Amino acid sequence: MTTDGTTEHVHGYTAEKSSHLKRLRRIEGQIRGLQRMVEEDKYCIDILTQVSAATKALQSFSLELLEEHLSHCVVEAAQRGGPEAEEKVREASDAIARLVRS
Amino acid sequence: MTTDGTTEHVHGYTAEKSSHLKRLRRIEGQIRGLQRMVEEDKYCIDILTQVSAATKALQSFSLELLEEHLSHCVVEAAQRGGPEAEEKVREASDAIARLVRS
Amino acid sequence: MTTDGTTEHVHGYTAEKSSHLKRLRRIEGQIRGLQRMVEEDKYCIDILTQVSAATKALQSFSLELLEEHLSHCVVEAAQRGGPEAEEKVREASDAIARLVRS
Amino acid sequence: MTTDGTTEHVHGYTAEKSSHLKRLRRIEGQIRGLQRMVEEDKYCIDILTQVSAATKALQSFSLELLEEHLSHCVVEAAQRGGPEAEEKVREASDAIARLVRS
Repeated sequence: MTTDGTTEHVHGYTAEKSSHLKRLRRIEGQIRGLQRMVEEDKYCIDILTQVSAATKALQSFSLELLEEHLSHCVVEAAQRGGPEAEEKVREASDAIARLVRS
Repeated sequence: MTTDGTTEHVHGYTAEKSSHLKRLRRIEGQIRGLQRMVEEDKYCIDILTQVSAATKALQSFSLELLEEHLSHCVVEAAQRGGPEAEEKVREASDAIARLVRS
Repeated sequence: MTTDGTTEHVHGYTAEKSSHLKRLRRIEGQIRGLQRMVEEDKYCIDILTQVSAATKALQSFSLELLEEHLSHCVVEAAQRGGPEAEEKVREASDAIARLVRS
Repeated sequence: MTTDGTTEHVHGYTAEKSSHLKRLRRIEGQIRGLQRMVEEDKYCIDILTQVSAATKALQSFSLELLEEHLSHCVVEAAQRGGPEAEEKVREASDAIARLVRS
């Protein structure tokens, strides 16, 4: 949504925008918590546990975003058909590969 | 393809069937190689390197399968529209989540 | 290290503290960048690419922390011997399992 | 263990050898099951579920192997001390990084 209120293109995740922002702020809080733990010389294993939690939270965020992308952008492109559909599938597949490998 | 030769439903990956089988046989060979390494008391780190290779090969296989699934089953369901499209997207998203978490 | 200068226990990562904090601040910046992207309705795939980058950065951080932990806490416990060594190995193995599965 | 009964070096996992072989044979069976599924044109999502199961089984195997390696080879190297201990920790850390990234 542009600032002048016109809608150029509403992505799949727009409806969930505030829930996404809330999640990301929570993850930001986890990263700041990690900084505090390092500053206070907390035990390495406890820091690693927190890193795993933050990584999992990022992963859940990306899986949700991906599902919204598939159910909006990819489905709509498929309905319009043609090379754009193929392009969207390839693009989504590349993003999935990056997630699986990260 | 059913045994009597009629085609009920051709999945996205059918065209790539022989290439998939070749990949899976290679992975089977890697697993048998791992058994030999354990039997011959090979060094743990070398075994772990081979396990990582086999895991990566399985991952590449699943990413290819998934891309074919998206570009066939999901795109076709999207084109037919209705609740089936939603169902296919949810199902694919669940499979992606299992891949990302495994 | 306590503020009064006495050393209670110096963890493996203490020497690298400022480099760790720098990394975590960079990751925090990536998470804030993600919030901006969501706010500005950036394209889902571009957001996913950034999530993968942040996840990889967290992973590298944890791998470095783990290596320091092994080369300090675990090695020292092994040298002291006894049940503490076993305990440290089990604890490190559990942390590794959480990393691998996250 | 060599065939003439002399012990050159017993790795950490030797005691668990038969349990490791059993696991690897089960994984081999999973891979052959995947080949049958592809041959019989099973539904892509069901194949992906089986791939995730096999990947998880490989991962558990490697985590067990790694724990045994840490509690034997790494702990013993640490007790002998010197550059070998450092070398073993670096080598284990590299193996962990490969697991986390695969």
